[in-house]
Amino acid sequence: MLINDRYDVITIGAGHAGCEAALAAARMGARTLMICLYLDSIAMMPCNPSIGGPAKGHMVREIDALGGECASAADSATRHLRWLNTSKGEAVRTLRAQCSPRRYSDHYRTALLTEKNIALHQAQAADLIIEHGEARGVKIKTGQVFYADCVILATGTYLDSKIHIGMTSHKSGPLGMVASTEFARSLRRSGLETGRLRTDTTPRLHFDTIDWEALDCQRSIEEPQAFSHFGVKKRYDEMICGLTRTNAETHRIIRKYFSESPLYMGKLDTEGPRYCPSIDDKIIKFPEKDTHPLFLEPITSEGREVYVQNFSTSMCLEAQLESIKTIKGCERAHILRPGYAIEYDFVVPTQLNPWLETKQVKNLFLAGQINGTSGYEEAAAQGLIAGINAALRVKGAEPFVLRRDEAYIGVLIDDLVTKGTNEPYRMLTSRCEYRLLLRHDNAADRLCGTGHSLGLLPDEKYESFQKMARAAEAEERRLEELKIPPTAEVNERLAAMPSSPLSEGISAKNLLRRPEVSWSFIAELTGSELDPEYGEKIANELKYEGYISRQLRQVDKFRRMELLKIPPYIDFNDVHGLSAEGRGKLEKIRPATLGQASRIPGVPPTDIQLLWVAIENGRRQRHEKD
Amino acid sequence: MLINDRYDVITIGAGHAGCEAALAAARMGARTLMICLYLDSIAMMPCNPSIGGPAKGHMVREIDALGGECASAADSATRHLRWLNTSKGEAVRTLRAQCSPRRYSDHYRTALLTEKNIALHQAQAADLIIEHGEARGVKIKTGQVFYADCVILATGTYLDSKIHIGMTSHKSGPLGMVASTEFARSLRRSGLETGRLRTDTTPRLHFDTIDWEALDCQRSIEEPQAFSHFGVKKRYDEMICGLTRTNAETHRIIRKYFSESPLYMGKLDTEGPRYCPSIDDKIIKFPEKDTHPLFLEPITSEGREVYVQNFSTSMCLEAQLESIKTIKGCERAHILRPGYAIEYDFVVPTQLNPWLETKQVKNLFLAGQINGTSGYEEAAAQGLIAGINAALRVKGAEPFVLRRDEAYIGVLIDDLVTKGTNEPYRMLTSRCEYRLLLRHDNAADRLCGTGHSLGLLPDEKYESFQKMARAAEAEERRLEELKIPPTAEVNERLAAMPSSPLSEGISAKNLLRRPEVSWSFIAELTGSELDPEYGEKIANELKYEGYISRQLRQVDKFRRMELLKIPPYIDFNDVHGLSAEGRGKLEKIRPATLGQASRIPGVPPTDIQLLWVAIENGRRQRHEKD
Repeated sequence: MLINDRYDVITIGAGHAGCEAALAAARMGARTLMICLYLDSIAMMPCNPSIGGPAKGHMVREIDALGGECASAADSATRHLRWLNTSKGEAVRTLRAQCSPRRYSDHYRTALLTEKNIALHQAQAADLIIEHGEARGVKIKTGQVFYADCVILATGTYLDSKIHIGMTSHKSGPLGMVASTEFARSLRRSGLETGRLRTDTTPRLHFDTIDWEALDCQRSIEEPQAFSHFGVKKRYDEMICGLTRTNAETHRIIRKYFSESPLYMGKLDTEGPRYCPSIDDKIIKFPEKDTHPLFLEPITSEGREVYVQNFSTSMCLEAQLESIKTIKGCERAHILRPGYAIEYDFVVPTQLNPWLETKQVKNLFLAGQINGTSGYEEAAAQGLIAGINAALRVKGAEPFVLRRDEAYIGVLIDDLVTKGTNEPYRMLTSRCEYRLLLRHDNAADRLCGTGHSLGLLPDEKYESFQKMARAAEAEERRLEELKIPPTAEVNERLAAMPSSPLSEGISAKNLLRRPEVSWSFIAELTGSELDPEYGEKIANELKYEGYISRQLRQVDKFRRMELLKIPPYIDFNDVHGLSAEGRGKLEKIRPATLGQASRIPGVPPTDIQLLWVAIENGRRQRHEKD
Repeated sequence: MLINDRYDVITIGAGHAGCEAALAAARMGARTLMICLYLDSIAMMPCNPSIGGPAKGHMVREIDALGGECASAADSATRHLRWLNTSKGEAVRTLRAQCSPRRYSDHYRTALLTEKNIALHQAQAADLIIEHGEARGVKIKTGQVFYADCVILATGTYLDSKIHIGMTSHKSGPLGMVASTEFARSLRRSGLETGRLRTDTTPRLHFDTIDWEALDCQRSIEEPQAFSHFGVKKRYDEMICGLTRTNAETHRIIRKYFSESPLYMGKLDTEGPRYCPSIDDKIIKFPEKDTHPLFLEPITSEGREVYVQNFSTSMCLEAQLESIKTIKGCERAHILRPGYAIEYDFVVPTQLNPWLETKQVKNLFLAGQINGTSGYEEAAAQGLIAGINAALRVKGAEPFVLRRDEAYIGVLIDDLVTKGTNEPYRMLTSRCEYRLLLRHDNAADRLCGTGHSLGLLPDEKYESFQKMARAAEAEERRLEELKIPPTAEVNERLAAMPSSPLSEGISAKNLLRRPEVSWSFIAELTGSELDPEYGEKIANELKYEGYISRQLRQVDKFRRMELLKIPPYIDFNDVHGLSAEGRGKLEKIRPATLGQASRIPGVPPTDIQLLWVAIENGRRQRHEKD
């Protein structure tokens, strides 16, 4: 351990972003110091301890393919596992795992403590050291300074955070821990523009006070599965979730207590997560709805604490208790922990480059909720990218950016740095233009190569991916060559599906193209021994071949725009004819590529045309000079 | 769950005292609300995660025999187990377990969450509700009030706590959690006299940065053992401790940094634990010593964090790091967490009755570090007694007090309430007058009956104790009747011990009286099938019979004094001839018995004689009146 000496990278914070950032930087060879508030609170899950779900699950797979940790952490902690979005099409189908928070945390803790390039140190960050516009290090509360080439901030919701329950509030981070007030001030002094956001969580109920008999229950899927491409597929049947609903009486009680809802009373004027609104918010905004679905999810290993999914609230304790008790199955419920809202500082993310470095302060990277996002997966994804880029910077290499057509992670970061956010940004499949290309099942195809060439995905994992990819290719060839004869037996089974009978022989591959013919049918019919995960991928690519080709053509166009970098010598003030609004937005965001410029809200297509011409002209002129 | 309604008992705090208090009260039938700061921080071990050792181990066994939880918690979390004090005589021999803090915490968490009479609730206590000199309930930070017949405070080191590292300090509880400032103010308003104490902890090192090869190592005992009388005896070989020492260079570095030692600089003028001084304190107080022994103890389940036993310090980080690196085996050590001192409010314990209720505020019970003690076991012991007495109060029953001749717990509490303390009080065998009576091996004999009749020790456990006690008695009778013949073989084995040969037959029981003849020898010789734990007990009672009888006679005298209650109608001002100092002390402490009065420092024996006469006279006069 070094004091007053130099690390390659320092990361602040040990949540989902901080952990991935430190691991990525260290695995890429950077000597990394990770400063965290409390060593037993690593990768905590203060809200719902679930990993995955639409778009989030996709990112978990992408992180895994690149060499990140969160899929493995989820696998080690899963207690309940389901496929989500199965009815909405294969592109958006993904896993969601309910996890044991302790096991999840333990997985990261062990990963960090056994990674040779990471020095963990428990301390409170107090001040960011910036010299000549460059991040130099971090001063901790007890006065010591640690220096590094790059600093990654992943401070989560701790910056000047305040907890609200009913009309009372107090300064506090989540988990009963102290808020980071001093460091928040330091960040503001750095000149970065900050704002306030808010997030809420639900009350937790005691398992034994819920009438489980009265509820519909949801079990895990039966097939063995894993989030990680490299994990052992397992069945999880440790727990059962209960389904219930709010009702008119619940809503009446909540309305009765509106005077104790900081949301309703305007005490919380910060923006909360739009796609995960609190229950009082739902009742304010959708007065016509007389019921909302709820999921009761046991969250701890010993199973005695239950999360009430969709019932997050910051109303007073009486309101929480009284309203919960109107819900079927919860009539005798005891609240172990109240729901609450937490307000915290975030940094306006349009101040970031697409590689998560701030434009203003060189070598300063930001990841996770500090950038205005919500969700463990969003945080982990940013942590990974920040960690990769800090390590690349240390090596003097070019930044690494995932494009929108390569990964959900690319969409996430491009949205943040291009459009900014004024509410906690959550990843959704609808934010992604190329959903058929960015599937849960092809994350390894998309990103393992990249992860490996970054030096992040280890050889062993990369080889296991390659082996599987070769097996899938071989199987696809076999299915192409294998003719299925129009026998009575085959046609009888097709009829049962129903699928039209064969009048003549057809290759297994072509049969698989039929929308109603599943991989498992073909696998059984042809005696395939391919891992079903890869079988499904082949099936999807065949069934959606037409759509996929169309998206690939769009991507071509998109990539051309994306490849067109806006050179540093372009001064937007010198580009004639730009609209006033466009010029202002371009100045503020300073996009890295013409593609990014085209996505800035308020920059009209004509401005993009003018900018294009300016880039081409500039290039020609400089070329002529040389 | 009830708001604005009545519980029987409320406990504040979920540390070692709070957990035992809530469990005891609830198991004795009291409807108990347990309020804690953070539900994932139950029964934490912020200092050394060990349970037991001299005097402390004795209390753990006593708590277990009475029906408390901490022995079972230790058994479920043990990673390394040793007998301590084996060379200092059987009376003080006891177990010490190195535990996994997470497993220890999980055990209590499950016990609390599965106990039907306990309602756990995560909240910050803000105000103690006192009406007409009686505790009525607790107001939490968000404004709700919970009412109860009795309130138990077990707030640990959270009251207005402040952490010191080097010459810097900041408000904070342990574990990075918020300090309880508001509640500390509320307590002071209640009129209770409070003071400040301090405790320190050691830096934690990364396992992989220690050169284990260079160190002597200490393994667990080989025999299967358990702390709980009712537990399964197991072998523990999960980890190894390392032995090392400070040296002249270590001491030089520490002296060099004296200007960064808040202790040396007088910044910490509160008293710390005398029997567990910090390393800088040792070097200040014993300048002639040039080495101190250290133990390196891996403390977490994944084994990557190492506690440096005997190296607690609040010096600045540079001093900690530089001095640690001078120590054999630690030359490359990385500090995961720095050592620190924490200062906190405590309540002067002479304001308590021997049943841990405050004299000033009726139905208010205090347990643990709030009473000025140090140590998890001391806290748990007080928690148990406070919980028992709160439950008894709810039932309208008389208070329960353990005498000094019954249990170390009795010594602990009698010392606290009679003598007070101006430093964190730690239990030591030397504080106990009747060490031969209060052994590790006879805790069940001493206390299982009491635990059972209190309704705390369940029938099942009591029956298992009775069965074992009957077996031990039968075995003792058998050994009395069994003659060992003076055969050549026996004499040869005796000679090997060495023990003098038999010239004629002798009962096995009498042979066991010889100091050098062990239980295991007799057990093998006579084919005994008795649990060795009870065999050792028989052996000890035989070997020390003379001493034990003498202590029993002393106890007789002691008990007579102890039985003589000082009736409430005795006014010390009316007792003629008392010394001024004695009268003052008696007024202040208001002892419950003449025995307690005799132990108050500064009350001379002549005052005790006068008081005795006054009690007898008073009793006679009242008797005559009736």
